[in-house]
Amino acid sequence: MKTNRNNNKSEIILTGDRATGPLHLGHYVGSLKQRVSLQHEHEQTILVADMQGLTDNAHNPAKVSSNILNVVADYLAVGIDPTKTTICLQSQLPALAELTMFYSNLVSIARLERNPTVKSEIQNKAFGRSIPAGFLTYPISQAADITAFNATLVPVGDDQLPMLEQTNEIVRKLNSLAGKSILNECRPLLSNASRLPSTDGKNKMSKSMGNAINLGATEKEIRAAVKSMYTDPNHLKIEDPGQVEGNVVFTYLDAFHSDTQYVSELKDHYREGGLGDGQTKKVLEECLQEMLRPIRARRAELLDDKSQLIDILREGTQVSREKTEAVLFDVKGAFGLNIL
Amino acid sequence: MKTNRNNNKSEIILTGDRATGPLHLGHYVGSLKQRVSLQHEHEQTILVADMQGLTDNAHNPAKVSSNILNVVADYLAVGIDPTKTTICLQSQLPALAELTMFYSNLVSIARLERNPTVKSEIQNKAFGRSIPAGFLTYPISQAADITAFNATLVPVGDDQLPMLEQTNEIVRKLNSLAGKSILNECRPLLSNASRLPSTDGKNKMSKSMGNAINLGATEKEIRAAVKSMYTDPNHLKIEDPGQVEGNVVFTYLDAFHSDTQYVSELKDHYREGGLGDGQTKKVLEECLQEMLRPIRARRAELLDDKSQLIDILREGTQVSREKTEAVLFDVKGAFGLNIL
Repeated sequence: MKTNRNNNKSEIILTGDRATGPLHLGHYVGSLKQRVSLQHEHEQTILVADMQGLTDNAHNPAKVSSNILNVVADYLAVGIDPTKTTICLQSQLPALAELTMFYSNLVSIARLERNPTVKSEIQNKAFGRSIPAGFLTYPISQAADITAFNATLVPVGDDQLPMLEQTNEIVRKLNSLAGKSILNECRPLLSNASRLPSTDGKNKMSKSMGNAINLGATEKEIRAAVKSMYTDPNHLKIEDPGQVEGNVVFTYLDAFHSDTQYVSELKDHYREGGLGDGQTKKVLEECLQEMLRPIRARRAELLDDKSQLIDILREGTQVSREKTEAVLFDVKGAFGLNIL
Repeated sequence: MKTNRNNNKSEIILTGDRATGPLHLGHYVGSLKQRVSLQHEHEQTILVADMQGLTDNAHNPAKVSSNILNVVADYLAVGIDPTKTTICLQSQLPALAELTMFYSNLVSIARLERNPTVKSEIQNKAFGRSIPAGFLTYPISQAADITAFNATLVPVGDDQLPMLEQTNEIVRKLNSLAGKSILNECRPLLSNASRLPSTDGKNKMSKSMGNAINLGATEKEIRAAVKSMYTDPNHLKIEDPGQVEGNVVFTYLDAFHSDTQYVSELKDHYREGGLGDGQTKKVLEECLQEMLRPIRARRAELLDDKSQLIDILREGTQVSREKTEAVLFDVKGAFGLNIL
């Protein structure tokens, strides 16, 4: 089953998540649904990025280690199929660290500091010069991840495009050094789903901001999250006309409700007046409860028998070890270091 | 023979050389002689640092790869005994790269830029901000090397002391994270040999400056090097009194001539006048020719059968792989990542 799953698959896809918290509806809309569908057509690997999670959590490593299996359970619960998608653990793939070391010699500090994604993250985290070396250099580590699988297609948000540019710069340098093409340049796969806002409407949904609905959220948590959701602050009485744009309840209904005709009618009604937030929230809550109930159940079942999750991760990691070691061998060859 | 060589040895010593050129008399005086003597008393590992050599030679990797076996031949030729000293190759020890990744999250860019050794090297190499990431971060990689062997004693020049400080900072952070002592702090072993000047008297002897006498130098090369050696520029006629201090010929005689009484008499004669540079150079040349003849012969013999050198390096690397993987396991444990 495993051995021939890669035959006739057209693209090599690498994707993944920092293991710093359980996954939430933002991940579901932004990437998980896409992965479930991509796994049928392509050779897809999902990297559970524990090492990258540590780049800004080294002094609280439990935040990473305690979430690894949660993330794997999230994957399986939404329908990622380990017989179709390889799921592996970053820290257990030495080739990724070794490639990072090689690539570090090909990228200047100035180039890293110019990377817009890193720049804005440094600003957000108020790191200044006290930024951990591992954080400033994580685009190199990401290039190692992508190239170690020789990925051709990398699903990203548009804020991540500079990362792929940096990766492809490294690829070109490496291929030029090797005198032949040993690494693939990768292309971005931009999601056509718009980014899901946080429940308070302020940001994108974020693991760390307490404004997310996790895939494993309880009924009560879902209810509370929908209840507190940001709507139209000027829609004070039910009979008032309300605004749909920026109203998080409608954004979520657009993202999750299967009956678009019905959602469209609700919007018209809300705009005209006479439809209360209590009513729209009730519709959204029902929709989310229904969607998340089987995911939560499957997730709990999986986390109840961790050995199964560990086996899946171990097997995927083993498959990935072979792939990444093969690429490392080629890169070492480019540096003339396959001598033992 | 190998299995019990570490019994009853008191210190764990890690030392090594960047594999960027054949070794020379400066290495012989500064470290190689010391290593030959330390190997009887201590558990000594010599790391052939090819990865570190690449940090500023990534675009000319042959400078590194072509020198790896030269360096190993140099070691054996001067009397380093592979049954007493483990000789291993940095690029073949994945744990070193993996430890570097973990430690990178514990060291800030500001801390790296404050490192006086790195500061002065950046200045010497006129890198500016175009410094390769791998070069700025090489003290982290060095900390990985030292701790991966759990070294207690590291032979260094005094310019390298800041490196050991940085290593011990990482050790303390790691032990604090682990809640127990998993890594040793290391102490410097400062050489009591003074640094050998270059043949032109301008610098320390350097692989890259063309002012060194390699251990494998031919008779002709030795003769030419001694002939061109810097003496006392004011000692124009044989009968003039000459200056011994700063006269490279006498510095070398002090370092290499076995008969100190005879050298002392030569110095007196030179100071008084009547002893020409031709004469002192002749004495030095004879001494160096005699010393280097068997080293050159042994070196050539070793390089004539590279498979033997490769076997030695492979065996030492295998032994080292086990040691370094064990330390990596403990460090991963501190981050909660031994889960597969």
